[in-house]
Amino acid sequence: MKKFQVVGIGNAMVDVLARAEDSFLTEAGIGKGIMQLIDMPRAVDLYSRIGPAKEISGGSAANTIAGVAHLGGRTAYVGKVKDDQLGAIFAHDLRAQGAVYETALAPKDAPQETGRCIVVVTPDGERSMNTYLGVTEFLEPSDIDPDMMSQAEWIYLEGYRFDGPQSHAAFAKAIAACKGAGGRVSITLSDPFCVERHRDAFRRMIRDDVDLLFCNRAEMLSMYQTADFDAALTQAAAEVAIVACTDSEHGAHILSDGQRWHAPAVPTKIVDATGAGDLFAGAFLWALTQGYDLETCGKMGNVAASEIISHIGARPEADLKALFQKAGLI
Amino acid sequence: MKKFQVVGIGNAMVDVLARAEDSFLTEAGIGKGIMQLIDMPRAVDLYSRIGPAKEISGGSAANTIAGVAHLGGRTAYVGKVKDDQLGAIFAHDLRAQGAVYETALAPKDAPQETGRCIVVVTPDGERSMNTYLGVTEFLEPSDIDPDMMSQAEWIYLEGYRFDGPQSHAAFAKAIAACKGAGGRVSITLSDPFCVERHRDAFRRMIRDDVDLLFCNRAEMLSMYQTADFDAALTQAAAEVAIVACTDSEHGAHILSDGQRWHAPAVPTKIVDATGAGDLFAGAFLWALTQGYDLETCGKMGNVAASEIISHIGARPEADLKALFQKAGLI
Repeated sequence: MKKFQVVGIGNAMVDVLARAEDSFLTEAGIGKGIMQLIDMPRAVDLYSRIGPAKEISGGSAANTIAGVAHLGGRTAYVGKVKDDQLGAIFAHDLRAQGAVYETALAPKDAPQETGRCIVVVTPDGERSMNTYLGVTEFLEPSDIDPDMMSQAEWIYLEGYRFDGPQSHAAFAKAIAACKGAGGRVSITLSDPFCVERHRDAFRRMIRDDVDLLFCNRAEMLSMYQTADFDAALTQAAAEVAIVACTDSEHGAHILSDGQRWHAPAVPTKIVDATGAGDLFAGAFLWALTQGYDLETCGKMGNVAASEIISHIGARPEADLKALFQKAGLI
Repeated sequence: MKKFQVVGIGNAMVDVLARAEDSFLTEAGIGKGIMQLIDMPRAVDLYSRIGPAKEISGGSAANTIAGVAHLGGRTAYVGKVKDDQLGAIFAHDLRAQGAVYETALAPKDAPQETGRCIVVVTPDGERSMNTYLGVTEFLEPSDIDPDMMSQAEWIYLEGYRFDGPQSHAAFAKAIAACKGAGGRVSITLSDPFCVERHRDAFRRMIRDDVDLLFCNRAEMLSMYQTADFDAALTQAAAEVAIVACTDSEHGAHILSDGQRWHAPAVPTKIVDATGAGDLFAGAFLWALTQGYDLETCGKMGNVAASEIISHIGARPEADLKALFQKAGLI
């Protein structure tokens, strides 16, 4: 038995969540529903303009790993924070959830701070993310412990990390160690604009290394540069063993081995959409390592996503296993 | 017209909110439902033992002032944070709510950090508070701007501050400047054990300087060292122009000028009791400065308290004025 069922690698962040009207997005020049990278001066300016906020640990892959840990999975996370107060918050929340988290801290005198994401939540529950990467941008190959990767049934790579200067080398090191020991590789495309920025690298990795692809409709269309969703799904399924593609209120499509399933969305009042895709992946991966069939994995993913969007913050608050039970899935 | 309707002085804190079963309180040696002062080693130990948490600006008088600001009152706050990430969060959230906050920061090399309160919320919604005061303990008379105090219709003093070494002198300076310019003084007793620690000083200040006393039943009984609630209320009313005493689900009692009113509690599902008393005071003070009668002030206080206990965190999330309107109070 491998020590870890899932090891995630991603951008370590604390979310700064504030509510605002749609008009604020326009005034502040924020693109709705997407992730935009910002620098420190912009972070300071935006922060001074948003209303009272809440600080809750986030980071896409970290949310996924928190979900796996919440469900009782054996799981670890790799991502960089600084030796500062926000870094301590991030580390605490992940470990307190039961995940292993041992990435070396960036030192107190590092020029950047722990990364944060200013998330503006509009009345429709949509989140618009403004990411100051800080020290997490500089995760290096030396931060990847090949031993840990070789002990993973699955590694889970966050697409957002493609924005880091050393990320490709770090991912390559993780993939080699994992695959060399018989493990498998999953990835999330993270964001349509992130796909746009790094399409060739994503395409290469998907063709050559990825066993399980997570994405949503917009990311899938961006990846294959088409408006034909079914054609994109078919193309992805020809390149990857398992494709799990979410489609908002239309649920999730899972394709594997010439077969295709549809898992309907679980209707919920959307309070804050932050982390819906992350927790879909977390529940899906956990279910997969428990031996559930792919359709059930997708259904559990949807239940977990519906829990996350029903409250502020991207980490589970209700007992997800109890929700799976209520939905007749376990 | 004075520049400020209410100026609050208190312990500046960020709340670290985590849920736990009652058994955790026993294991961790935490007294249920009260505030206990802890040092940094205890804070580090407790933090390592609680589950994933949320960071939300708190501090008793700061919550009250945030309530006044939320309602559109002209208001300011005095309390010390450090030039660190938690200090920036505290300052942002108060200013973003519309309060003036100009207290000098403790410098980066101060031996303590910004204060924080580890709040353990049990399934019944009760909160048990573990307070690391940090730099906020050292608010000095020099932090009190007499000019600001002279421009306040009301100052609002947080009883918890009696635990600070220079707090009595700081309060005396604030009171002199406020009263010298025709302003009035309100105080909250904060906590029955805090009253126990500083009973004589509280009693003296109440007799000599206080025009409006906020407290709850336990604090009132502790103050007058009696089990007879009505006798304590009568005694307080003989010493102070206005007494506003909350009594959990039994509502609030207001006494003034030989008269007595009862404002019934507003029934709500208690999610997190943190800040109920603070927001009662915030709404009461705002209503008073708007010229509402004392009974209505109490009723608005209860509506505000019911909003606060319906969610995690001690700052208002719903529109309190809309709730007052719905309750037929404005």
